[in-house]
Amino acid sequence: MSGHAKVAVVGATGYAGYELARLLLRHPEVETPTFFLRDANVRCLTELYPQLRGWGEAPCKVLSVEAIAKSGAEVVFLSTPHEASLELVPELLAANPDVRIVDLSGAFRFRNPETFAKWYKLDAPGAEILSSAVYGLPELYADDLPKARLVANPGCYPTSVILGLRPLVDADWIDTARGIVCDCKSGVSGAGKEPKRETHFVEVNENFRAYNLFTHRHTPEVSEHLGLAARDFVFATHLLPVERGILSTLYVWLTPGRKADEIEALYRTFYAGRPMVRILAGGKLPELQHVAHTNFCDIGFALDAAGERLVVVSCLDNLGKGAAGQAVQNLNRMRGYPETAGLL
Amino acid sequence: MSGHAKVAVVGATGYAGYELARLLLRHPEVETPTFFLRDANVRCLTELYPQLRGWGEAPCKVLSVEAIAKSGAEVVFLSTPHEASLELVPELLAANPDVRIVDLSGAFRFRNPETFAKWYKLDAPGAEILSSAVYGLPELYADDLPKARLVANPGCYPTSVILGLRPLVDADWIDTARGIVCDCKSGVSGAGKEPKRETHFVEVNENFRAYNLFTHRHTPEVSEHLGLAARDFVFATHLLPVERGILSTLYVWLTPGRKADEIEALYRTFYAGRPMVRILAGGKLPELQHVAHTNFCDIGFALDAAGERLVVVSCLDNLGKGAAGQAVQNLNRMRGYPETAGLL
Amino acid sequence: MSGHAKVAVVGATGYAGYELARLLLRHPEVETPTFFLRDANVRCLTELYPQLRGWGEAPCKVLSVEAIAKSGAEVVFLSTPHEASLELVPELLAANPDVRIVDLSGAFRFRNPETFAKWYKLDAPGAEILSSAVYGLPELYADDLPKARLVANPGCYPTSVILGLRPLVDADWIDTARGIVCDCKSGVSGAGKEPKRETHFVEVNENFRAYNLFTHRHTPEVSEHLGLAARDFVFATHLLPVERGILSTLYVWLTPGRKADEIEALYRTFYAGRPMVRILAGGKLPELQHVAHTNFCDIGFALDAAGERLVVVSCLDNLGKGAAGQAVQNLNRMRGYPETAGLL
Amino acid sequence: MSGHAKVAVVGATGYAGYELARLLLRHPEVETPTFFLRDANVRCLTELYPQLRGWGEAPCKVLSVEAIAKSGAEVVFLSTPHEASLELVPELLAANPDVRIVDLSGAFRFRNPETFAKWYKLDAPGAEILSSAVYGLPELYADDLPKARLVANPGCYPTSVILGLRPLVDADWIDTARGIVCDCKSGVSGAGKEPKRETHFVEVNENFRAYNLFTHRHTPEVSEHLGLAARDFVFATHLLPVERGILSTLYVWLTPGRKADEIEALYRTFYAGRPMVRILAGGKLPELQHVAHTNFCDIGFALDAAGERLVVVSCLDNLGKGAAGQAVQNLNRMRGYPETAGLL
Repeated sequence: MSGHAKVAVVGATGYAGYELARLLLRHPEVETPTFFLRDANVRCLTELYPQLRGWGEAPCKVLSVEAIAKSGAEVVFLSTPHEASLELVPELLAANPDVRIVDLSGAFRFRNPETFAKWYKLDAPGAEILSSAVYGLPELYADDLPKARLVANPGCYPTSVILGLRPLVDADWIDTARGIVCDCKSGVSGAGKEPKRETHFVEVNENFRAYNLFTHRHTPEVSEHLGLAARDFVFATHLLPVERGILSTLYVWLTPGRKADEIEALYRTFYAGRPMVRILAGGKLPELQHVAHTNFCDIGFALDAAGERLVVVSCLDNLGKGAAGQAVQNLNRMRGYPETAGLL
Repeated sequence: MSGHAKVAVVGATGYAGYELARLLLRHPEVETPTFFLRDANVRCLTELYPQLRGWGEAPCKVLSVEAIAKSGAEVVFLSTPHEASLELVPELLAANPDVRIVDLSGAFRFRNPETFAKWYKLDAPGAEILSSAVYGLPELYADDLPKARLVANPGCYPTSVILGLRPLVDADWIDTARGIVCDCKSGVSGAGKEPKRETHFVEVNENFRAYNLFTHRHTPEVSEHLGLAARDFVFATHLLPVERGILSTLYVWLTPGRKADEIEALYRTFYAGRPMVRILAGGKLPELQHVAHTNFCDIGFALDAAGERLVVVSCLDNLGKGAAGQAVQNLNRMRGYPETAGLL
Repeated sequence: MSGHAKVAVVGATGYAGYELARLLLRHPEVETPTFFLRDANVRCLTELYPQLRGWGEAPCKVLSVEAIAKSGAEVVFLSTPHEASLELVPELLAANPDVRIVDLSGAFRFRNPETFAKWYKLDAPGAEILSSAVYGLPELYADDLPKARLVANPGCYPTSVILGLRPLVDADWIDTARGIVCDCKSGVSGAGKEPKRETHFVEVNENFRAYNLFTHRHTPEVSEHLGLAARDFVFATHLLPVERGILSTLYVWLTPGRKADEIEALYRTFYAGRPMVRILAGGKLPELQHVAHTNFCDIGFALDAAGERLVVVSCLDNLGKGAAGQAVQNLNRMRGYPETAGLL
Repeated sequence: MSGHAKVAVVGATGYAGYELARLLLRHPEVETPTFFLRDANVRCLTELYPQLRGWGEAPCKVLSVEAIAKSGAEVVFLSTPHEASLELVPELLAANPDVRIVDLSGAFRFRNPETFAKWYKLDAPGAEILSSAVYGLPELYADDLPKARLVANPGCYPTSVILGLRPLVDADWIDTARGIVCDCKSGVSGAGKEPKRETHFVEVNENFRAYNLFTHRHTPEVSEHLGLAARDFVFATHLLPVERGILSTLYVWLTPGRKADEIEALYRTFYAGRPMVRILAGGKLPELQHVAHTNFCDIGFALDAAGERLVVVSCLDNLGKGAAGQAVQNLNRMRGYPETAGLL
């Protein structure tokens, strides 16, 4: 099972899809991927992306469930809107009982169909398919990945928030009488490639704003994987005038008497053997530039003198660890490759 | 007393000083200001700033307390580091019993000398001079300004945070059992004009990071003017890759049962007759671009469905309402001019 | 004729239109302008632009030729696409024999109808109306403006290039056996407000590219007002990752023996009494920041040691001197107001 | 001779040095490099650059000629200022008769010592050492590299200009009676890591300007490798508000009657077998984003309808093909590795 993987990609026309294409082209354990597009005029990847000339080449075929099944792909990546994934996933699983899927959309991220229905205003997938899907955060759910048929690649914001707070939650060090605040900032590539008023250069450049307060669809992922009730935390998102990167500033009050070195040790222990999470030493704080164009999630923190108020800063590339890189990391875990294969 | 003002400016070589120069040059109630510099070779403002040619002209003189006193300036603006202001203010007040000062540094912002000494690691000014200084936030302390001899112009971050939260504090609507989080982001001009590693274009561009957590000198201003104990709030600052602007996202839990229109009404009432604060209607959120190059502070908010978790967003130009614009607004209040004179 | 002007604006929804709205709101010689929009739901300017609250207010009405005529507007600004201007201008002139128009589009910029037809691929306006239109570059055609009924506001690029080279052309100092190169770079607001792939933040940020080589519609304006044959110059345009500003680097070979101070004197003499053009002294070169948000055109130059190769750099704000500011400057000249009224 | 290379790096503290460190860490034919620094406190690369944790590790040693010689390095990269390279190169060559050097500074780029002395205002290296140095532009001088002891890595601007124009020069297609214009724009990392007024974020952001006209030290490299007399071309440089990338717009007039497909064919033939130069097809123009973080030089062009005026656009990453990437490409050629080893 751990020979070279035959993979297919649907949706390489978006930013995450492009990133995925680049990563798969140079992945040492992956055969030349096949790309499936709606546009029948594109025959190969460098026609779609001339800037990839010199990096490699791959065939593009017209998208259909049959064509994907016929291609012999063992793993199919869906970098598609959730509406498209909702349709494609059951059809692909039906068409080929052996196929495995990594879906980058939000369609299969929730155990509870009602959660999806409420936040996405769409009919949810069946409970059976949801219950079999694995939430593809390899640092938390590594053991479920080798056998998963369907991996729901997490959202970019939740990846940063969940990785940033989960050690504290599991250790039960948070004073839950106080609220938890997750103040998250993302680069513009997270808003997609479709030209919109909100992503026009002139509207973003030299600007900064909060958006989707209390309505962002990534909220229930955070809630579910940190075990937080809605009223106990706020998850807020902002648009940064940069291409890529998410930085989440996470505020908690601790149960009394914690020391900085204890906290650092907690995180180091929690993420021991997890090569894509880097804990910063001694009060150093992460920054976007150090994770941009990588699959790392960098985590640092500051504790007040009383050992009570803790600020955790968690930082990643929304197209890397927040999307395409994480999808490849999931592939690696699913197939038994080294976890960092193709990611360094 | 409300004739045209004779003003002097010390420290026009920094970003806030330049902004102040521009504002004063076109202020309808201000005579041509005199600029005092250490550099004896600069005779007039357009020698210092050729880009001001066509906007106006003003004399530059060599900085000394005597020269300022002799200049007949009625109001002196100090856009100087706090070390320099600590020295200059008592000397200027001694040299001319009628002079009035607007100091843009942090030197005279605290009633309690120990607060200054602790956060700035310097000997504080005498208690007498501190107790006579007015904290120059005109929306809160308008009545103290007409007679003030010394106005301590507030910090840029505190202006945004205090204006954003004060209505809730005064109304006693905050559930203080929960913590208050002030997540603030600033453009780079707030970090000063001195070239440093942290302000090199390559280090800031496409980057974002938190800094000075639990150590930022603006913390005690927030604490003092909101009446908050240290352990009850976190004030955190971040560096945005933009030239100017501060956006503060402020998180509070409310005492139960508040509605959005009540909150909007609270803010509108609180800031009635305050032309430089704009309350956004109906869940609209402010953004940096709308306040850049202005003296406005824009405030908007989002409330959760339960009426419990409230996010207030407060936004201003760090060189405008956060520094030079506010200094001019203070001048207007001190001299009885219309509050917006020279600011629109 | 030089009382306060009654003005109307069509097309305030674009970037140049917004800039025009801001300038006219605070123009001391202009009555509250009326804005004409297609959208009947917008009743006043701050509904369209909430960020203008506090700056002023103005009525918005539904766009029609009759409504404009009835409004009593003496001067109508058209910040409309050239297709719309082609229709509106003759209708407005017919509807009100006294109305005067400043058109910001390219529709009426060429004496020769064939030039327009060739470069814009549209039927040109009639020769009569073209021959009566004044090319609204006040530094060159000031005397034609007081009586003009129709002013064709120049393109942003041509304004920078023509102002940069015209003194040399008139002095006949250019060695025409060598070619002239106009390498121009513009900020993104020049590409309009419509969301497009090419103006998506992610496509522009950290990017730079040339575009429309040999096909840019501004080429014939440069040719006509500098008297250059197509084969003797190249006009090339590039997209800068900034909001606003045009910088044109202009390369000429001079007839032998010129000295830097002669050239500076030539420019100073040529632009004497032209307050919106600033000549930089002694080899200083202009930069975008110094003209952004102004109506200035800054010009500097460098000459080689042999006095032969000359590089002229000409720099302006594409929304200011390149569009809305220049339109206001034209208004000032048309109505006999001070040339800089409302522009400083 | 083509086993794994033992390499040393001097000057990894600058931007090009950091890029070189990253490239060498992952180069498949290079053993773990040794870094030589002035700072004795830094023991390994991730102490210097914590953001490299997870990518690899390498020892840092105190810089001295003896230490480098003792390290057994077969190839030494100098990413040092030209003053330092001037000293180090002869000492390194003397200390180890077998060592080979790739120098990224300007110190050894010119055959003629007077050229260096004139443009760099320093005593030039001896004529002997200069005459033995190879100008490390592998697309032009590939055959000289396998035996070179000293490779002078070209300047970033000249690489883009020379690669962009050399095919036309060699084909003798340029009408030399007309002038040649090289209008070049660079990102800020090219200006070095030292904090300076000119590289302060606030001074660069939303700005653009020309600099060093007729005085830029890269001028003689262009002149020498294109065989151009000073009076026949202008080489002008501008600062772009981006981190990295150079785009050179190159203007020539051709001898009559050229067609676009001929020109494309000329470039394709010239760069056949040169994998790091990509010729764009059919009038497509290169852009910075497509070469950033790569070692490619992308070249496209536009020809006027008369086949006379040609604009060539040449584009690369100033830290990649313009510095560190090119240094690695030179290493590959020197050692007989595949030309793209470690560069894709």
